Amino acid sequence: MSAKYAIGIDFGTESGRALLVDVADGRELATAVYSYSNGVIDEYLPGTNIRLEPDWALQDPNDYIEVVKRTVPAVFKESGVDPADVIGIGIDFTACTMLPTKADGTPLCQVPELRNHPHAWVKLWKHHAAQPEADRINEVARERGEPWLDYYGGKISSEWFFSKALQILNEAPEIYREADRMLEAADWVIWQLTGRETRNTCTAGYKAIYQKGEGYPLRDYFAALHPGFAGVVDEKMSRDLVPLGAKAGGLTEEAAGWTGLRPGTAVAAAIADAHATPPAAQAIEPGVMTIIMGTSNCHMVLATERKKAPGMCGVVEDGIVPGLYGYESGQSGVGDIFAWFVDNAVPPEYHAAAKERGVSVHTLLEEEAAKQRPGEHGLLALDWWNGNRSTLVDVELSGLLIGATLATTAPDIYRALLESTAFGTREIIEGFADNGVPVDSIVAAGGLPDRNKLLMQIYCDVTNREYRVVRSALAGALGAAMHGAVAAGAEAGGYADIFEASKRMGGLKDIVYRPIPENVVVYDKMYADYKKLYDYFGRGENDVMKRLRALRREALANNG
Amino acid sequence: MSAKYAIGIDFGTESGRALLVDVADGRELATAVYSYSNGVIDEYLPGTNIRLEPDWALQDPNDYIEVVKRTVPAVFKESGVDPADVIGIGIDFTACTMLPTKADGTPLCQVPELRNHPHAWVKLWKHHAAQPEADRINEVARERGEPWLDYYGGKISSEWFFSKALQILNEAPEIYREADRMLEAADWVIWQLTGRETRNTCTAGYKAIYQKGEGYPLRDYFAALHPGFAGVVDEKMSRDLVPLGAKAGGLTEEAAGWTGLRPGTAVAAAIADAHATPPAAQAIEPGVMTIIMGTSNCHMVLATERKKAPGMCGVVEDGIVPGLYGYESGQSGVGDIFAWFVDNAVPPEYHAAAKERGVSVHTLLEEEAAKQRPGEHGLLALDWWNGNRSTLVDVELSGLLIGATLATTAPDIYRALLESTAFGTREIIEGFADNGVPVDSIVAAGGLPDRNKLLMQIYCDVTNREYRVVRSALAGALGAAMHGAVAAGAEAGGYADIFEASKRMGGLKDIVYRPIPENVVVYDKMYADYKKLYDYFGRGENDVMKRLRALRREALANNG
Repeated sequence: MSAKYAIGIDFGTESGRALLVDVADGRELATAVYSYSNGVIDEYLPGTNIRLEPDWALQDPNDYIEVVKRTVPAVFKESGVDPADVIGIGIDFTACTMLPTKADGTPLCQVPELRNHPHAWVKLWKHHAAQPEADRINEVARERGEPWLDYYGGKISSEWFFSKALQILNEAPEIYREADRMLEAADWVIWQLTGRETRNTCTAGYKAIYQKGEGYPLRDYFAALHPGFAGVVDEKMSRDLVPLGAKAGGLTEEAAGWTGLRPGTAVAAAIADAHATPPAAQAIEPGVMTIIMGTSNCHMVLATERKKAPGMCGVVEDGIVPGLYGYESGQSGVGDIFAWFVDNAVPPEYHAAAKERGVSVHTLLEEEAAKQRPGEHGLLALDWWNGNRSTLVDVELSGLLIGATLATTAPDIYRALLESTAFGTREIIEGFADNGVPVDSIVAAGGLPDRNKLLMQIYCDVTNREYRVVRSALAGALGAAMHGAVAAGAEAGGYADIFEASKRMGGLKDIVYRPIPENVVVYDKMYADYKKLYDYFGRGENDVMKRLRALRREALANNG
Repeated sequence: MSAKYAIGIDFGTESGRALLVDVADGRELATAVYSYSNGVIDEYLPGTNIRLEPDWALQDPNDYIEVVKRTVPAVFKESGVDPADVIGIGIDFTACTMLPTKADGTPLCQVPELRNHPHAWVKLWKHHAAQPEADRINEVARERGEPWLDYYGGKISSEWFFSKALQILNEAPEIYREADRMLEAADWVIWQLTGRETRNTCTAGYKAIYQKGEGYPLRDYFAALHPGFAGVVDEKMSRDLVPLGAKAGGLTEEAAGWTGLRPGTAVAAAIADAHATPPAAQAIEPGVMTIIMGTSNCHMVLATERKKAPGMCGVVEDGIVPGLYGYESGQSGVGDIFAWFVDNAVPPEYHAAAKERGVSVHTLLEEEAAKQRPGEHGLLALDWWNGNRSTLVDVELSGLLIGATLATTAPDIYRALLESTAFGTREIIEGFADNGVPVDSIVAAGGLPDRNKLLMQIYCDVTNREYRVVRSALAGALGAAMHGAVAAGAEAGGYADIFEASKRMGGLKDIVYRPIPENVVVYDKMYADYKKLYDYFGRGENDVMKRLRALRREALANNG
């Protein structure tokens, strides 16, 4: 029997990427990327002078189809693999990235008379203009004592599905009326590949407040938000969900033509990008946490029970793998804090030295900071430069640095910032552990673990847990391909379930980070102070950060 | 009658400077500077391999004599003034800068067999190695309830006279024994000029705990510190003080020979450098504060009564001008915080832009920061990079910055640091005002007021008081010259008292900084938050800064 292959397509913020892997062992044979021609649309609607409001972020659904058309043929060309040997496709996608369509799946932005209406386009995950709607969603939920609120950390984000849908109804009722369907772009792409509209359990659970056995929030709740919103689920969405790993359908003739694949090739239910990673990281047992470390941190851990942990983004049964509760938490600023620091607060001599040595400023600062013992710099920071997602769910919080002296240097502060994000992760882990969701060991993924070994050792010492690192640099796409292999099924040469696929196709690097006992002792002390400041500034005892935000807004308004 | 002149000599940390002025109007005719050949001695004793301990800082008394020999003739050469027309000399000096001598005034470090002993040399003001002695001085004073402690902010500094003297006794009893006299370098220079040992009321009051009518601390107190220290005042010092402006003596033949001046020229009692400034700034009425703004801030204000203000450095009757109580407070980090920031936390583009425009990075940041409204940056800082002198008297405190986001820029932080020092000054002013020492208006002196207009406006808005700026850039030397003119007396063409001298010879620039009402409103809000953080971190509610210092010390000890 010839080798069998699967394809995973990872739809990111700026581009989409296909990965061709060997189903037997997850070996990566070829990858190809396509940058969206319209990218992130945040200034003008494409081809018009129509200016978008602040905080808007749209995309063009046609870019997603172009990803399929361009990257899949490219991986065959690169690898020489016969498309007929591909048994399944899976996709992972940014979420919540959603759009309104006609009943046949035509995006409203492709309807000529609606094309000039911003609300007809895809709202990208980082479209933040639905904050008033999110505020109302939370206020009404709190008033009514909605039981689901606690399973989302007590606060629904402006990024999520109903915030965005309600913004359409509030600001463009005519677009809302024209929309026969509203759905995640992830599910829309599956529709285009299979000819069949589906909804996946992952994004429905994490972004559209769907809890297994309980469903979506009730009609009364939606009616309380807005009378015209009462029927949003039954009129625009669907209560039929396709579980992860299930076959959403077979590839249509048309989609087969785009790609060179056989018509009927198994297409898996879509999945959110972060949630595709744990199977690739072989981190799908209870007690194993996956942390995707990049500009921000996303923490996922599995458990056998549904609990409430402080400020978690969500807990969803079957949301990561079937049969387990998938918990997600997050830190809203990590790599982007380090990048801010390098861009805004590092003096010229370090830039010059890095340039001379041909390394990045990050690498240079990491080297210098690695020469220190924990505690040596005398600093402590709160990692809230971009607010705090978990465990406080408060975008109004801001960064703090304490302990500076006239002897403080850039590497000192850099190390303190690395540490602050590790303390933030420890706070999340302890929030889980204290609420019956144990975290025994950790697998790191994302861009940072390979780039910053000091960061990994600090996380390890601060959280006093072993860290491993996912083998693949394209773990999301690999996870998606694994879902494709499961959708194809064992009989077709794939796998019966994601656990089997993970065992065979996933993997870890050889490196293991282990806590250094004397560092753990020092970091325990520093964490006690981090926590004291965390509570003092984060839980209302001193709301100075909010007052400073308010003063800033007033000053900027007076400028305008 | 021909014009009359006076000379002021300002003895600084790195150099000494003479200023020749017209007694009639304070017009500055010539100045000359001499850099001490042995500078600040903090590594090796001159000409030896004898290494000094950390925190030591010594000077060579011969350098002071060289200042007199070199700079006084130079101002005559530059100005063409006839030395015979000089009616008086005054000097101002860093303090407490002290030394042990023989009975005839010979510094012990000039005694050949003692020259290799570090304790035989001049201890410069910033010699910080007497901290254990200062701790003991404070502990014993608190235990005994010494009444004078509150007049020095509740804490005697390691920089002051008895800390340094006790360190000599503790560490080098043989040097202590050899010392017939111990005195301020200021008074020692006067001795060399006049042939007569004197003590001035200013440094005795601020640095040696001398309170008019009460004298020095009692023998019992000194005995409690160390049995051998019981007689320090009567054995090594003097209870006879020469008031400010009084004639300490006439110039000796020898000193006349060094300078070209007439023998017998009036020499005024010495004065500490900061305290020479208020007369030059015409700030010698009750309620007018002089702030010397440089690397640190020194605040002086006069009042008709003796009160206790939190954390003040000292209150001394006749300590600045006769007949009034002179209060001194201080901020231990101001310009050096801004300098730290420019050196350690400003990215290359600002350095490049400043260079291209031929301005300093400070000037560039000031320009950018001046474009903002108060509150616009969303930041708040505690100005404790170098600890806090007034009002907390705690060197273990450290800097804090709160409110940073991913949008925060270097000019934002620069402005927040300027503001933080203004909030620190407001805290001091309110501490005085709340305790019956009113501060109605302010005169700024030192290096910063001319260099940073934004800083001045911020101080003005934060403290809601008018600021004027002293006319002379060499206000300390001018003040010293005024004391020389007073020592000469009205009959010789000088003045009967310092008030008359100040009126004629002192002066202010034309510029007046006035509070901008809308800025005052915003800064009132920010100050309320500054004060909340000040109390929280500074008064024991959260001692995280001290714990971080302790961790740093431990880590560095483990490195060693």
